[in-house]
This record gives sequence, C-alpha cells and structure tokens, in this order.
Amino acid sequence: MSEGRVVVVGGDAAGMGAAAKIRREQPNRDILVLERTAHTSYSACGIPYWIGGLVDDIDSLIVRTPEIFREKYAIEVRTGHEVVEIDPVVQRIRILVTATGREVVEPYDQLLIATGARPFCPEVPGMDADGIFGLSTLASGVQVREFLAKKSPRNAVVVGGGYIGLEMAEALTRLDLNVSLIEKSSEVMNTLDPDMGALVSEALRDIGVKVYLSEGFESFEVDDHRVKAVVTSQRTLPADIVILGMGVRPNSELAAAAGIELGVKQAIKVDGRMQTGTPNVWAAGDCAATVLRLTGQPVHIALGTIANKQGLVAGTNLSGGHAWFPGVVGTAVSKICDVEVARTGLQEKYLRDHSSNYATVTIETRTRAGYYPGAGNITVKLLAEKNSGRLLGAQIVGMEGAAKRIDVMATAVTAGMTVAEVIDLDLSYAPPFSPVWDPVQTAARQLVKKL
Amino acid sequence: MSEGRVVVVGGDAAGMGAAAKIRREQPNRDILVLERTAHTSYSACGIPYWIGGLVDDIDSLIVRTPEIFREKYAIEVRTGHEVVEIDPVVQRIRILVTATGREVVEPYDQLLIATGARPFCPEVPGMDADGIFGLSTLASGVQVREFLAKKSPRNAVVVGGGYIGLEMAEALTRLDLNVSLIEKSSEVMNTLDPDMGALVSEALRDIGVKVYLSEGFESFEVDDHRVKAVVTSQRTLPADIVILGMGVRPNSELAAAAGIELGVKQAIKVDGRMQTGTPNVWAAGDCAATVLRLTGQPVHIALGTIANKQGLVAGTNLSGGHAWFPGVVGTAVSKICDVEVARTGLQEKYLRDHSSNYATVTIETRTRAGYYPGAGNITVKLLAEKNSGRLLGAQIVGMEGAAKRIDVMATAVTAGMTVAEVIDLDLSYAPPFSPVWDPVQTAARQLVKKL
Repeated sequence: MSEGRVVVVGGDAAGMGAAAKIRREQPNRDILVLERTAHTSYSACGIPYWIGGLVDDIDSLIVRTPEIFREKYAIEVRTGHEVVEIDPVVQRIRILVTATGREVVEPYDQLLIATGARPFCPEVPGMDADGIFGLSTLASGVQVREFLAKKSPRNAVVVGGGYIGLEMAEALTRLDLNVSLIEKSSEVMNTLDPDMGALVSEALRDIGVKVYLSEGFESFEVDDHRVKAVVTSQRTLPADIVILGMGVRPNSELAAAAGIELGVKQAIKVDGRMQTGTPNVWAAGDCAATVLRLTGQPVHIALGTIANKQGLVAGTNLSGGHAWFPGVVGTAVSKICDVEVARTGLQEKYLRDHSSNYATVTIETRTRAGYYPGAGNITVKLLAEKNSGRLLGAQIVGMEGAAKRIDVMATAVTAGMTVAEVIDLDLSYAPPFSPVWDPVQTAARQLVKKL
Repeated sequence: MSEGRVVVVGGDAAGMGAAAKIRREQPNRDILVLERTAHTSYSACGIPYWIGGLVDDIDSLIVRTPEIFREKYAIEVRTGHEVVEIDPVVQRIRILVTATGREVVEPYDQLLIATGARPFCPEVPGMDADGIFGLSTLASGVQVREFLAKKSPRNAVVVGGGYIGLEMAEALTRLDLNVSLIEKSSEVMNTLDPDMGALVSEALRDIGVKVYLSEGFESFEVDDHRVKAVVTSQRTLPADIVILGMGVRPNSELAAAAGIELGVKQAIKVDGRMQTGTPNVWAAGDCAATVLRLTGQPVHIALGTIANKQGLVAGTNLSGGHAWFPGVVGTAVSKICDVEVARTGLQEKYLRDHSSNYATVTIETRTRAGYYPGAGNITVKLLAEKNSGRLLGAQIVGMEGAAKRIDVMATAVTAGMTVAEVIDLDLSYAPPFSPVWDPVQTAARQLVKKL
C-alpha cells in the first residue's frame, strides 16, 4: 500500500487530510483526489455561523483550496468530478465530469473512500420544493444564504433538535426570523439525557425559539413549488424556509454497489487501520463507521474531529507507516448563544437499558469563584459503574467556560479512571477560572458517595 | 483516631475542610478549631481581585464565617486564639487569647495542624516600614486596601514575578498606580520555562507594568518609617507601596518546636493520610509538604486546591474513614488581564538537569476556529520522555479559553498517557470552542515526530 497510485474519493477533511499526509511522507507518490463539488477542505461546522452572520467571509471557512493543494502540495485535485462506480476487481473507477456530462475511467492501486455524509431527508411529497434545505456541503450553505437574501423568509421551521438544528435555530434567530423547532424526543439534544436536554430546550426558548417537543415531523404543505408549512403530529406550522436537522446518513451507496461491506447504520465497515473488507480499498470520515471505546460497539458519528483523525490514520497507513484509530468516547460540544453544551461517554438511558449497575449524580455550581465577575451557572451530570467506580460518561450545560471541561472527562473516561481518581486530579484553580474544586470534581465528590 | 477530641489549629481551607468533614461523619464528635485571626474559610486567592476592585465586597471572599460553623456545623471555633505551643507527650496545647493576652491550655486526642503559610520577607533593614506588604491572610489584604485608600500611593513596586506578584501588579495597574515589577530570574513566572515566561513578561508590559528582569532585590530606602524606594542589583525604584511576592514559607515553627518532623522546604512532613511522624498529630494545607506524582519527590506547593484536598483527606481519616492523598502533578493557572497562563508537570529546566532523554515542542495556534469571532492566539509547550513517549509536562499561554486546557494535560500526565495517546483523545470540537484539532493535540502531533 505504500507504492502505486492512490485515488481519494472526496476532498474534505478525511480525504484531503489523508492526501496531505501521504504527500508529506512520499513526495513523489502519485495521488489523485476527486471531489464532486467545487470546494476542498472546508469547515462544514462553520456554515451555520456564516449563515447567521457571525462569520463574514465564506472563504474563511475554506482551510485549503484546490489550488493550494495543487501548487503547495503537488496533489492532483479534480473538482466537479463525481465518482459513480468502483470496480474493485480490476481496480478502476468511473467518473462523471459534472461540467461536461462526460465520463472518464481511472485506475487505482489504493483507493480511499471519503465521501462524507448527507442530511437525512424524509421521503414525503414536496421534499424537493423551494425553501427546504439540509446542510452538508459548502454549496448547500450558499443555497441557504442566497435563499435568505432573495426571498426574505419570515417564518422558519427547524426539523430536529440536534447540533445542526440548534445552531441553525440560533443563526435564523440572529437574522430576526420567527423560528420554530420541532423535535420528536421529549427534549432537544438527545445525545444528552432528558434532564440535561431540558436545560438546552430552555436556552432555545430564552432566545425566542418556539420549541415543540415530542412532536414528530409528518409532511410539508407546498404551494407553487414553494414550501408553505410543516405539518407535525400535532399542528401545522407556517414555514417560508425549512431546515432539516434530522441527522445524517453516510454516503456509502457507491461503496455498497461495489460490494464493499457496510456496517452500523450503513456506514462503511473499516478496521482500526481504516481498511475496508475489500482489498486495496480504504474508507475514512463521515462515510465510515468507528468504534465506541467504552463498549467496543461499532457506531456512526459524523464529526470533523473523527474525520480528521481517521484521514490521518488512513494517510499514514497508505504511505508506509502504521497507525491505528482506537475509536471515540462520544465527545461533542455545542452552544446556543451563551449556553454551552457538551457530552462524552455513555448516557443514562443506555446504562438503564444495559445494566442496573450504575450510579449517577447531577450538580449545579458556578463556572468561576462565586465572587469573581462573570461567574455563571454550570450543571454537571456524571455517570459511573457501581462497585468498580469507573467513570462512564459526563454531560455539561452551562455558561461561558463550562463546556470545554468535558475534555477532562473524556480523557478520564479514556484512561479508565474511577470517580475517586477524578477527585484526586490536580486540576487548575484560580478565581477567574474555576471554584477551588472544579465543577467536575464537585460532581465526582457527590457521585462517589453513591457507588 | 475516630474517637475523642479533635483540635484543629488554623481555620482556613485545610483546617475547616477537615473539621466540616469530621462533623458530617460524626455528628457528636468533640471538635475545637483555633484560629489566630478573625476569619475562617476565606479565599486568599481572591484578595488581589478585591484590592484591584474587580470584587466589590470583601465578605464575598468568605466562604463560611465562624458563626456559620458554630451554628450550622456545631463546630466550636475560637477566633483570635493563637496556639503557641504543642506538647505532644501529654497531648496538650497552649493558646494565647489575643484580645486579653491571657493563655489557656487545652487537651487533644487528635491534633490537626493547618497553620498555612506566610509570604517570605527578606531580612533587611526597613522591612517593618509602612507601605511594605506581603499577602496571605484576609487581614493582610485589608491592610493593603486601607493603605491604598488613605495614603494614595502613586508608585508601586512588586518584588517577585510569581502568581501573587503578577496578580497584584495587575490589581495596582487597575487602580492607576505606576507599577514596577522586579524578578531575579530571566523571565517572570519561573514555574514556566523561560521561553513561555517571556510571553507573560510581555503581557505585563502590555498593561503598562515596567518589568525589570534578572534583577535581584537588595534593600529598601525608608524615610520617617515609610518606604521610599526599592533598591535592586541595578537601580533604585521609587516606591510608595511595595508588595512582596517572593514566595511563601510554611508556618511550621510551632510544629518544629514540638519536635514534629519537617521535610522539604521546612514544610511539615506527612504521609498520604496526612499523619505526621508524631503520634496523633496530623497536618494539612499550606504548612504541609506533598508529593509530586511524576517523580515521587516531596514538594511544598501552597495552593488552595491542595489545601482543600488535604483537608478532606485528613478529615476522612480523623473520622474513621480511610483516604490517601496521592499528591499533585504541579498544576497551576493564572491570568494577566486578557492573557491566561497555565502549567502542569515537569519543566524543561528540570528535565535538562536530570535527563537528556526528553523531547519538547512549542506551537502557536488559535483558541477557536480561526474564522470564529474572538479566536485568539494560544501557545502550547509540551514535554515528553523520549522512547516511551510518556507525557511529562505542559505549559500554556494564550487568550480567553486557553488556560483551562491544562486540565486535560494534567489528567493525561496523571494517567501516564503517551503523546500518541493524547493525539487519539476524543476532545470536543465546535468552531466557538476550538480548532478541529485542539491546540494540545496540535502540539502532540508535532511532538510525536521528535520522540
């Protein structure tokens, strides 16, 4: 795998990360990257902030352009090139050149599939009406912003209360739209437990979003090919623009059609080196599965951190090195205006279904010394295995400075630390940064009593 | 140790933490706390912020008053009571009652010494002149603030560039004094390596502090019992007020006089349970030594976090439980206006003296996604053992959100993680919080190449 031509399908985080790593290790390696859109290496996570006006320049979301890859990295990047078929037996791919509609065929010695994910779109009539958007590529962000500028919509409905749904609800609120959000679970952000999610629902209401919980999406009302309303299980919400935040699906159809094995949630199955079950075919990023370190379970989580790490691992292995991606502990962070939200590890709902052998605690304290200006509330929930005391998960909702504390918990979970060991951690303290017991340790002190 | 009378000498973090823990475990235990000042359980760390006007009310620095301990915890607290002698053979202490000048004797079954530390004062003429202050007790903070209000000093000299020196330099700058700071090392904050300390010296200059480096304190010029100037090895700096930030010394004379064994830097020697070498005598907090977990070395570090943890451990053991304080990894954090500073683990100067088998890297990146509003610079230095790759230390200087990342490094150091394991950590990312590779991981990615 360290010789011959590498072809990379998909030019965002995982694909370009791998290509750049190979180039650093192998200055003369033949590398071809095929990207169906016009853009490479951009921050999809930044799109809601650009739409909401917090970020002025869309170009600032682009980490490296195709030109930079060509000129600075000597990597052949062809944009507007969509791979439509993989033949793993003869090791060739068929490519549709978007601009001309023509097809070309290219051989590969090693193939890396980094085709990303796409927003889930329900199969209902009117799905293709104007004003209904998912967000994934930079191009999809541009479409939303153009629609906002040209059509001046007044009523927005966000379907789904996950990270993208919340970030877009905030962005549209910033633009003075009337924003409603529907979520089929009992609280938004169902990667948190409902007691913590309730704090996030409250934060959304505080910025003026109308939040409809336990309310499923049913259909669209469309007039003259424009969306007019979203029909839920309980009401009809007028909508000039709809954002779909119903989760994402891996772009794995290309791989599946080539007989490459899929795994959890139709994500491409890979080993720790990012190899698929098909010889000389690799996969990385949002199209690929990964493993939850705590349980060994395969999971599909589409996040930039994972895509970057998997791309680096794939690039290392493809260029003669050896790297192994150990998986994730499920860390994520977000923000609704001033309220920060973070999680890592296992949720109480998972533990309740799989074991009665757990303990949990939720505490409220302050982000800084109580007397220091800017001290805000922080709520910390911890979960641990009874008897062993092993830390299993953490959830945090709070004001400025609250959320990044999740990284301490993610590190402790990864290290297999017990709750007692968390209490002993030598965490930093000064009045502008923390109470003398860091909030995660205050929670640990309460939790240790329940083990 | 779980029966009979417990006497606690010293009513701040360690002493009152222990007393409160004992009361929670043993509702009827006979507990007597003797405190020589008028205050209990206050945040000495908050004093510079109160002096600088960031905190309005001195009472907000007091976590719990003697009245609260008496009424809510049923703990007998006698303020204005200074223990002047311990007789460990007959288990009695002699106490000076400050208000009357009379002495009383009290017996103990278990004694906890939690006498704290005091600012180091050089033995030079004029040391007792008006206008020269160390900072330790709440009372000493009140003296500084009263002096500032009554005497309206214009020129301030801070001697020593450690945490207290820096925080006081900032506080006095906020009050519009002309502030000079002298530091005998080549850069301030010598718990950092000089390359990182230089960034802090620069931050001080940026807020208008005149910083004199590699310049030792020599003497005071005093006129009519008021300080007039500070004489350094190179110049004479006019001074209406002088703050001593030359480090602290443990208040261990009382213990030493009783034959209780002292250890590193004259701090009281204790085991992990906080027992001294003398039967039924315990010690905790700034008067006691601790252990650096990385090397097993005894160290004396006077910090509120350690005092609180040691107090809890002592209280647990004194009330029939079992707890062991494993020591610290040397984590600390501070802030000079907008510039945050943090450190943990071993310094390069230590490694250079003790081993050639280390690697280090320093990187500069951003605290948030580069395009996100409020992204600021962050410099991260990491140190690791060559070959094994084990993380040994970290230093961080940067803008808002930079410093608390030290806790991830402290946790990783404690867990014995390698640099490669740090790269694999599932740390949180969203544009308002971090670049997609957290700065500590960007540093780890550079460092791993040098191992």
